[in-house]
Amino acid sequence: MSAQAEHPTLLIPGPIEFDDAVLSAMSHFGESHVGAPFVTVFGDTLTQLRSLFQSTDPTAQPFVISGSGTLGWDQVAANLTQPGDQILVLHTGYFADSFADCLSAYGAVPTQLKAPIGSRPSLSEIEAALTEKPYKIITITHVDTSTGVLSDVKAIADLVHRVSPQTLIVVDAVCSAGCEPIAFDAWGLDVVLTASQKAIGCPAGLSILMTSGRAIAAFENRTSPPAAYFASWANWLPIMRAYEAKKPMYFATPSPQLVRALHVSLTQILSKPLEERFAVHAAASKKIKQAVAALGLKQLAAREEDQANGMTAIWLPEGIAPPDVLPKILARGVVFAGGLHRECATRYIRIGHMGVSVTDPKRGDADKAVKALGEALGEVGYKAPA
Amino acid sequence: MSAQAEHPTLLIPGPIEFDDAVLSAMSHFGESHVGAPFVTVFGDTLTQLRSLFQSTDPTAQPFVISGSGTLGWDQVAANLTQPGDQILVLHTGYFADSFADCLSAYGAVPTQLKAPIGSRPSLSEIEAALTEKPYKIITITHVDTSTGVLSDVKAIADLVHRVSPQTLIVVDAVCSAGCEPIAFDAWGLDVVLTASQKAIGCPAGLSILMTSGRAIAAFENRTSPPAAYFASWANWLPIMRAYEAKKPMYFATPSPQLVRALHVSLTQILSKPLEERFAVHAAASKKIKQAVAALGLKQLAAREEDQANGMTAIWLPEGIAPPDVLPKILARGVVFAGGLHRECATRYIRIGHMGVSVTDPKRGDADKAVKALGEALGEVGYKAPA
Repeated sequence: MSAQAEHPTLLIPGPIEFDDAVLSAMSHFGESHVGAPFVTVFGDTLTQLRSLFQSTDPTAQPFVISGSGTLGWDQVAANLTQPGDQILVLHTGYFADSFADCLSAYGAVPTQLKAPIGSRPSLSEIEAALTEKPYKIITITHVDTSTGVLSDVKAIADLVHRVSPQTLIVVDAVCSAGCEPIAFDAWGLDVVLTASQKAIGCPAGLSILMTSGRAIAAFENRTSPPAAYFASWANWLPIMRAYEAKKPMYFATPSPQLVRALHVSLTQILSKPLEERFAVHAAASKKIKQAVAALGLKQLAAREEDQANGMTAIWLPEGIAPPDVLPKILARGVVFAGGLHRECATRYIRIGHMGVSVTDPKRGDADKAVKALGEALGEVGYKAPA
Repeated sequence: MSAQAEHPTLLIPGPIEFDDAVLSAMSHFGESHVGAPFVTVFGDTLTQLRSLFQSTDPTAQPFVISGSGTLGWDQVAANLTQPGDQILVLHTGYFADSFADCLSAYGAVPTQLKAPIGSRPSLSEIEAALTEKPYKIITITHVDTSTGVLSDVKAIADLVHRVSPQTLIVVDAVCSAGCEPIAFDAWGLDVVLTASQKAIGCPAGLSILMTSGRAIAAFENRTSPPAAYFASWANWLPIMRAYEAKKPMYFATPSPQLVRALHVSLTQILSKPLEERFAVHAAASKKIKQAVAALGLKQLAAREEDQANGMTAIWLPEGIAPPDVLPKILARGVVFAGGLHRECATRYIRIGHMGVSVTDPKRGDADKAVKALGEALGEVGYKAPA
């Protein structure tokens, strides 16, 4: 039973379908951003993020700021880099280019380590890059939303700790937090940045970060002030600490409705073991990927170990473009996304399978997706190989 | 008849009480940020902002970005200033100090022209400052939320055009857009920056800007790239133009729910003549200020021409502090705000009277506010002079 109006099932790699209770929190009545009811909810939400990222280190620090996932890049660039700092950017798609652009905007010097479309830099390539010169930061896109390529964050973090222990490890988890395992403390990460509207299951509008004590120390030891104001941790750090201690403090007005929605979503997520959530996402992903293969289609991420669990990026058959099939898929009540990678956007489509669409089996969203894809392709004359 | 749960009436200077239809839009189902339904709504919303700011100049450009009002300062600093640029900041309270901090973070050089608490720099003081040296930008806080001081934007703009025509005019309208007249074209303004959660009547989470063709040209003629990424118009300008032309384009994921809520609120605001809306706010403000005076209380803004129409900041009687009365006011079902000005926060309180609280007379919010204030003061032993 849904309180939501009839609508096409949203199966793009974010925003996703949202739970009724989450959407209901979005319409919470106006309240003071420094009043006790909201301060309590915001404080609890910050503490919940520690659990989501499997962190118990008291020096770690979560941030929730109005914005989008992109603002997380600015937070990293403005607070952790100074002009001329060398940054190693692991490239698995569109979002590494953009993160590199962001770093450059603040005067840092990104070096991109690129892999062919659909794959990821190997550990030996990363090791070679790290030993070539000292890097202040390495950035990893956990799942690149443009390609559906999954990075092995744990293995990369282990490598960095071994060969370049002074390098801060920054993970772009916009398309992974909430559907791929992230063990912030155990893996020794320094920043995990994400957004609300994907596997975290809350409407868009929040930049969400987890930062290590080491990252905060690096910030505090800067020799120049942060090169931004709204993105500056100098402004937000006292605020986040105050709210988590259930004390109001003002820098800029947060969005009580979005934070309440995030709180509801995180409460749902944390009500079950996280491993169970990740396993459900992995199982749904496997099922969809098998169906895609049965249709004779290939993913951008060719190797199984490179494939994300919350989305699938699929090459269209020769001669078929996204505008040929997406409207036919929509006519079947399902919304997929077109391509996004600059070099091949017109040759593939993307399916998102995160949040309630996979955790609530009654919805049948995965089956609906596969059926709509097969039918739409059939309608444009494509026949799966026997 | 309200769909909202019973709750204390929120009469702080933002966030405010929201209309049911606006809150209902907040819980809109998940949808694609590049899908036709949302693209249409976002495009219409941008066009509505032109009407809100009384602008028909096709070279003017509205922006709506996830963030808070504060992000508007970063947009000005990152896009319109370069290191060393001289900025004249008119100071009428807390928010000028913060805007100046933001400008400094980007390397601009703010000079603050300060007035005593509760008043504003005079036109002759502003003229003297403007003729002393050339300023790239002048910033005006239309209503400083910390003091309730209203600036005469039209008169200042006329002065700037006369004595320093090359200076860009930037108006912080966070606490004025939607309740104080702003004639963007007629007054020759270059940037009006605001937020969603005050008199515009949409929950917090959006940075809203109106920019002139001259401001955009100044941005395009920069000799260095914008010193930010998320706040950069280089990234957002093509996006805003595309959406207003009803074409999808991607930079960072907007919040469909917040944009839909803004659309509903602007549709309501624009369904009546704007002059009527401003007159209703002025009348409600006058009534509240008269009641405050009848209680023997003084405003921070002593002179009538300095007083905002959407809020009132009131000195508490000697010996009474905000924590003495705010809980007693809350016990009467009304939420006021404490002080915010760094030099005197513990000596005054603030009442917000914007949006549905004044446009819907059936709510009786203004009467409730005045009654609660008088009773709470009586309870702590205050007697109004006969």
